[in-house]
Amino acid sequence: MTFLQNEKLSAAIASLQTTWHEQIPITRYMALEIKHANQTHIVLTAPVAPNINVHQTMFAGSIYTLATLCGWGAIHLAMKNQQVSGDIVLSSAEIDYKKPITKNPIATADWGNIDLDYKSLTNKMKVKITIAVELNVGNEHVATFHGVYVILPKD
Amino acid sequence: MTFLQNEKLSAAIASLQTTWHEQIPITRYMALEIKHANQTHIVLTAPVAPNINVHQTMFAGSIYTLATLCGWGAIHLAMKNQQVSGDIVLSSAEIDYKKPITKNPIATADWGNIDLDYKSLTNKMKVKITIAVELNVGNEHVATFHGVYVILPKD
Repeated sequence: MTFLQNEKLSAAIASLQTTWHEQIPITRYMALEIKHANQTHIVLTAPVAPNINVHQTMFAGSIYTLATLCGWGAIHLAMKNQQVSGDIVLSSAEIDYKKPITKNPIATADWGNIDLDYKSLTNKMKVKITIAVELNVGNEHVATFHGVYVILPKD
Repeated sequence: MTFLQNEKLSAAIASLQTTWHEQIPITRYMALEIKHANQTHIVLTAPVAPNINVHQTMFAGSIYTLATLCGWGAIHLAMKNQQVSGDIVLSSAEIDYKKPITKNPIATADWGNIDLDYKSLTNKMKVKITIAVELNVGNEHVATFHGVYVILPKD
């Protein structure tokens, strides 16, 4: 497997965050950001304040949204790395909330081990990928998400 | 089972929507609203525009949020009906997206058949409830959500 050079990785992250903020405006409202990424992982965060709920903790919908985009970003980076294009859509997902969240959570997904099924994609066939996203606050594990995404090849 | 009188039901719905908009500010951004409720069901909706994604369809995170609050609202009405109080929190959930959403979806949950385990609640024990929410656009079924909620008795 080849790896994105660091400057390409930085550019891919900056571009992805701009795309989300411009084209999924609720992410801007949430102040969702890509905290960093390296050759294997992508890490997102969002502040609690705009995502607060009636219990003064982070809203379940915002936690889920943070997780879905972390998984989406992981696939996006794997695709950039393999130089394939396609639309990423979420097909189904499940989430388990373990603790109330009172400080900015960190969502992490592993993109280095994603098997993109390069052959199917280059043959214009859609590909299904399951991604796990872990959410932590400090050392505390606060939620786990599993999303089933589909990559639709571009015509 | 007793039923909420219509004027109490209307008041409960108006109050719930105000609570959401004031205390979960992202719901105001989403323009989420309680479309109506009757003695058995609660129905929510949200416009696509503020909830758009990169594919010009409704964002998966917003669809999920609409569903979670529909389930939450169903439990809230059942609690009002049984005159019990407590905090409703989402413990886990799963969602299956069936179609891209291009027009305002309608989320529906059945609250008339919720078994609140009144005895446990009045004994200050927490209660777990699973709610199904169906999302439709016109006659088309676009997503299904199942949420496991917990009611935490108030001290």
